[in-house]
Amino acid sequence: VPDYGMLVPGIGDGDPDDVVVVKALVRAEVAWVEATADEGIAEAVATHAARILADELRVDTLTRAIAIDAVTTGNPVFGIINALREGLPSEAAAAIHRDLTSQDIVDTAMMLTMRDAADLTVASLDRVCASLAALALEHRDVPVLAHTLGQAALPTTFGARVAGWLHGIDEARRALAVAAHELPVAMGGAVGAMHGVSYEQMRRWAELLDLRPPIAPWHVHRHPVTRIAGAFSEVCTELGATAGDVLAGARPEVGELKEPSAEGRGASTAMPFKANPILSILMRRSALVAPHLLAQTAAAAALAVDERPDGAWHTEWDAARGLARHAVISSRCAAQLAEGLIFDRAAAARNLAAHGPADATTGNAGEVVDAIIARYEQGR
Amino acid sequence: VPDYGMLVPGIGDGDPDDVVVVKALVRAEVAWVEATADEGIAEAVATHAARILADELRVDTLTRAIAIDAVTTGNPVFGIINALREGLPSEAAAAIHRDLTSQDIVDTAMMLTMRDAADLTVASLDRVCASLAALALEHRDVPVLAHTLGQAALPTTFGARVAGWLHGIDEARRALAVAAHELPVAMGGAVGAMHGVSYEQMRRWAELLDLRPPIAPWHVHRHPVTRIAGAFSEVCTELGATAGDVLAGARPEVGELKEPSAEGRGASTAMPFKANPILSILMRRSALVAPHLLAQTAAAAALAVDERPDGAWHTEWDAARGLARHAVISSRCAAQLAEGLIFDRAAAARNLAAHGPADATTGNAGEVVDAIIARYEQGR
Amino acid sequence: VPDYGMLVPGIGDGDPDDVVVVKALVRAEVAWVEATADEGIAEAVATHAARILADELRVDTLTRAIAIDAVTTGNPVFGIINALREGLPSEAAAAIHRDLTSQDIVDTAMMLTMRDAADLTVASLDRVCASLAALALEHRDVPVLAHTLGQAALPTTFGARVAGWLHGIDEARRALAVAAHELPVAMGGAVGAMHGVSYEQMRRWAELLDLRPPIAPWHVHRHPVTRIAGAFSEVCTELGATAGDVLAGARPEVGELKEPSAEGRGASTAMPFKANPILSILMRRSALVAPHLLAQTAAAAALAVDERPDGAWHTEWDAARGLARHAVISSRCAAQLAEGLIFDRAAAARNLAAHGPADATTGNAGEVVDAIIARYEQGR
Amino acid sequence: VPDYGMLVPGIGDGDPDDVVVVKALVRAEVAWVEATADEGIAEAVATHAARILADELRVDTLTRAIAIDAVTTGNPVFGIINALREGLPSEAAAAIHRDLTSQDIVDTAMMLTMRDAADLTVASLDRVCASLAALALEHRDVPVLAHTLGQAALPTTFGARVAGWLHGIDEARRALAVAAHELPVAMGGAVGAMHGVSYEQMRRWAELLDLRPPIAPWHVHRHPVTRIAGAFSEVCTELGATAGDVLAGARPEVGELKEPSAEGRGASTAMPFKANPILSILMRRSALVAPHLLAQTAAAAALAVDERPDGAWHTEWDAARGLARHAVISSRCAAQLAEGLIFDRAAAARNLAAHGPADATTGNAGEVVDAIIARYEQGR
Repeated sequence: VPDYGMLVPGIGDGDPDDVVVVKALVRAEVAWVEATADEGIAEAVATHAARILADELRVDTLTRAIAIDAVTTGNPVFGIINALREGLPSEAAAAIHRDLTSQDIVDTAMMLTMRDAADLTVASLDRVCASLAALALEHRDVPVLAHTLGQAALPTTFGARVAGWLHGIDEARRALAVAAHELPVAMGGAVGAMHGVSYEQMRRWAELLDLRPPIAPWHVHRHPVTRIAGAFSEVCTELGATAGDVLAGARPEVGELKEPSAEGRGASTAMPFKANPILSILMRRSALVAPHLLAQTAAAAALAVDERPDGAWHTEWDAARGLARHAVISSRCAAQLAEGLIFDRAAAARNLAAHGPADATTGNAGEVVDAIIARYEQGR
Repeated sequence: VPDYGMLVPGIGDGDPDDVVVVKALVRAEVAWVEATADEGIAEAVATHAARILADELRVDTLTRAIAIDAVTTGNPVFGIINALREGLPSEAAAAIHRDLTSQDIVDTAMMLTMRDAADLTVASLDRVCASLAALALEHRDVPVLAHTLGQAALPTTFGARVAGWLHGIDEARRALAVAAHELPVAMGGAVGAMHGVSYEQMRRWAELLDLRPPIAPWHVHRHPVTRIAGAFSEVCTELGATAGDVLAGARPEVGELKEPSAEGRGASTAMPFKANPILSILMRRSALVAPHLLAQTAAAAALAVDERPDGAWHTEWDAARGLARHAVISSRCAAQLAEGLIFDRAAAARNLAAHGPADATTGNAGEVVDAIIARYEQGR
Repeated sequence: VPDYGMLVPGIGDGDPDDVVVVKALVRAEVAWVEATADEGIAEAVATHAARILADELRVDTLTRAIAIDAVTTGNPVFGIINALREGLPSEAAAAIHRDLTSQDIVDTAMMLTMRDAADLTVASLDRVCASLAALALEHRDVPVLAHTLGQAALPTTFGARVAGWLHGIDEARRALAVAAHELPVAMGGAVGAMHGVSYEQMRRWAELLDLRPPIAPWHVHRHPVTRIAGAFSEVCTELGATAGDVLAGARPEVGELKEPSAEGRGASTAMPFKANPILSILMRRSALVAPHLLAQTAAAAALAVDERPDGAWHTEWDAARGLARHAVISSRCAAQLAEGLIFDRAAAARNLAAHGPADATTGNAGEVVDAIIARYEQGR
Repeated sequence: VPDYGMLVPGIGDGDPDDVVVVKALVRAEVAWVEATADEGIAEAVATHAARILADELRVDTLTRAIAIDAVTTGNPVFGIINALREGLPSEAAAAIHRDLTSQDIVDTAMMLTMRDAADLTVASLDRVCASLAALALEHRDVPVLAHTLGQAALPTTFGARVAGWLHGIDEARRALAVAAHELPVAMGGAVGAMHGVSYEQMRRWAELLDLRPPIAPWHVHRHPVTRIAGAFSEVCTELGATAGDVLAGARPEVGELKEPSAEGRGASTAMPFKANPILSILMRRSALVAPHLLAQTAAAAALAVDERPDGAWHTEWDAARGLARHAVISSRCAAQLAEGLIFDRAAAARNLAAHGPADATTGNAGEVVDAIIARYEQGR
């Protein structure tokens, strides 16, 4: 039952897939031993786990086995524990997962996965923002036809349009960077009453994983999930709005924008003369997916009942991972797009002359550009 | 075409309805005149507007007329402008809406509406949190049966369960209070290039309305909307999760919890012996609605193209207002619920004895309660 | 707390609003008496109810009162019963709502509301289809530039594009017409076990209301709701896809399409030279809203537990009504659009010459038109 | 980048995964050659393709390669064509994909995938319905406590409750079976104008694939997708509502229902005494996911613009596949559940005695059972 991402074009190695989650599950379990067992045992477990993780094929096989077996208990933790314990002396084996519940490990591993995906995303967005800032400054005062409600409106400048993209993306980038560094470990024990575990252990565990110690267990209080989901969604939707503008500017009758070309990119099976703006299309795709995944995480929060919910929790994993994945993909496409976007100034002038209102100025477009760039510079 | 909220039980006077939005539209227009025209004109306009707003029947009639006419231009601004200008000297009339675009006014009025709804919500949540904190402390160490995945688990304490509710709601309350005070005015002019308007005017306008001056126009960069939407959604979903626990505890076979009773509340047309837990049901209802409204605002952000989008913007108003409305309603129900919730300690003891594992402790439930209360106290 | 639809431009009198639902609630109650009580009582009740309904102001006041009171029991049925019983002799009063539960009445009234809204929608869609069929035939062989993935592709004909619109809309129209005539009465009694009511009464009631007698009570089996929701959603989304094409064709750089003009329609407060394509914008708006409302009804079905659910049911009413409302509005806009859409053949020829591939034919576009028209003709 | 379904527990071999889609893509391409090329070439292509498909490892490797490469063109078709053409004589190679566009193949392969998943689902639902029918008859007249709005209501019978489950599931099963056999091939050519292809070829292709020939190309008229999505969603939500009832009945304080046990199933890492009702939890999980995926397909339909849309189409694949997958998984869990569900009649009697209203009957519960069984029998 493998999915290679064929129906979600753009997925690459290192993006949050099942193998990445398995590695995060292992990291979480190992750090727990380091936070709670004595040094010798911790070292034995860490060495054992490192050996497993170093063997890509073994991890792949393990992941597949765990996935198929997850139907038995409804989550992958038994499989991880068994794989980690196998071949270890019994004392070390017993230290693994001691006093934890599966939700502690799944939620913590998901937070690690979110954090790493956020780092990947922010790195791509850094490139996007730098390119857009340069582009906005270069064309700060170049008039273009604006459109409101699809119709010709007063002119703006190309710089102001690009600065607008920068503004939205930069704010989303900042929010994601902040959210990614507020992600907590999950540490509630069997029923969120911390049976057998202590705040002190929680703090040590969090430190080892570079996550935050939470105020309290959050088995059924899911703002850690919905907030990072909101941040990923904002990245996706803001990039999608930008992609929408690129797609509109690249339509043949407009002809003001062109995606950077690359071997084979955007080819058509039926029409060899075409070069489809595939980066923008994938960005827009991700933006149209994100709202539904975000809703899924919010609905899971709404139904987080009892001391661990009876189904809602299980809906969160693939949705949160999906948001992270789309943010990674979309921001990677966006970096390629922003670094190579081609603006046809002559076409813009032609369109403005043909359709713009006579004698209109570009207002205070330049000041808008300057304000956005200043904000961006201050937050680099 | 009036909706009185019959299909969304719980709506009350002052909640964000069409009349509230009309008043916000008027406030936004009047403050703009105050920010940009000379004092005499500003006073004339303000007096004129105050007279309109003071007449509830007139506002009601105006709202209905504007609503029906909104199909002509797709938004209510023309109707507001005409109503404000009517009967004013021409110089004062001309100062109204000068250099603004309808999106400036609609978005700013929506921000005012969100802010006021957030204030109402936070006030209710203050009551909820105070009651839950007292309840958690009172029952800090009273053991109850916990449930994970619907089944009997290790015991927790009733205090820890209630503290968990407090934790989720308190965090949502704080996030909403913060978000509500970051809401910006919308000030982009015709195409977001600030034709005829200045940052200086934007700052004065924002100050008069107690909103923030934004970095840049956000006609097509919608994080101000999606973020406050996220905050309202978190309130609704967290209250809904709490309601779910109350509903489970109030089932006849469990019998640990009971909603406070009131004349006629929760009556049944077919079964006079029933008293339905209607506060919790309405809270849960709002929690199940919120994710879809949140998705709507995110989808609108994804499609915010050009200098003003061709349909996506129009989907945002009712969705954002719906989220605000559900947060107001749900938090008001929650205040009544939290202030009167009845816990049957004997029933809890019976259930625990019958179904709990033998010789089990409540772990560190007390410490969890203390940590949550400490956090709550520090943020009051 | 009145909403006049100000934030959902396009709502008109007779569209499914609270007053329409109140009238449906009354019709359902009266028909129940007619189906179950003796003739004299039935006549007394019917006369009494007709008097109430004839007084628009009274219905309006009643609706408002019921709406505000609905918070007490969570639904509007008590209010309806009290209003109907007031002033009636006790025997007649007792016949009202006898053996029914509030869900029987709310669900049945919602079905009536859906049915009537479907009839309104289908009537508008008949106009849409007739106009599009004529337009498609008129331009059956007129070549236009096609776009795939936003880029210039092989040519099609304007007739084929319009026939495509017709195809999608005609299929949605047929599906809605079928679904609207499968809508059942809801007749389960207190717990879906038909306490005190019989299949025979159910059949008589259904016949009086021109609804179907269901196989069984559907208090917690919600396909009657999700299916009609799906049919309304399909109408909205198909009209929205058409609107998207009109908006693209009406962009200034393309200039092939123009909405029919009307006094004030599409005016801009900031740019008097503009005429916004507001019909298409509202259609697209409704299409972007529908998926989220559809999801709401499906989520309600997923959570339809026990013999009546504890919150999910309450989320359905406004969502289902919203879908009906958007279908009514969008199809009305579409009728105006389709009857007046202006195609600029010269502009189309210019665009094709400038951007189309050389020497390309329009394929079998004509045959596609003919197949679609044939299907349409057969189903009129 | 492999996903093995670890975050969507329940996935099994043969469920709609990337490999299944690749096989469907190959079947679609091969059948097209059979429908359009001469016999010798068709045979050569079919033999070649059969050899590829027979080698599971090769298909797996191919799928992975195509998935990674899909970012280049935005869909997997180039990869399929290249794999099929490699090693074939040029005339046979040229017959592959002749005159088709990638959307023809992707959409047709998705329809095959949907159809096969529907067949799997219906087969499981046949088992579910047969078991529930027997269970309903067995307990036709056994009184149980009913709950409305979470509270004790009049009694119903266990048979009536089970018959209700049967009713919802049986109707969903019928609707899916009908929808699955209305699925069309997609045959529009480059721009939906059937360049180079004919209705006659379409009919032959459809016949070879056991799909329907559509009225017209549906590149941008997506009811074939949204309707089958709606049918899968109904299966998921109806099964989820049933699962909700099982979960409520299995709570320790109620104790009326128990899932069938199996080695290791429902085990807990922290609490060895637990046996979690994992079948119901996974069914409920799928029901909570389905509405959001359904919304995704509707949103894609709303944005299906031009002759092929610029992003919306790309959102459909994973959403439609997800719905199919959840229906397959959930119905498989349901078959296991229905065939082994344990009803504790004594517990039910105890609960009814303790909480039911005195002297109450079970109404016409038996007649409801009979009506549902009659309908089921007639549609087997």
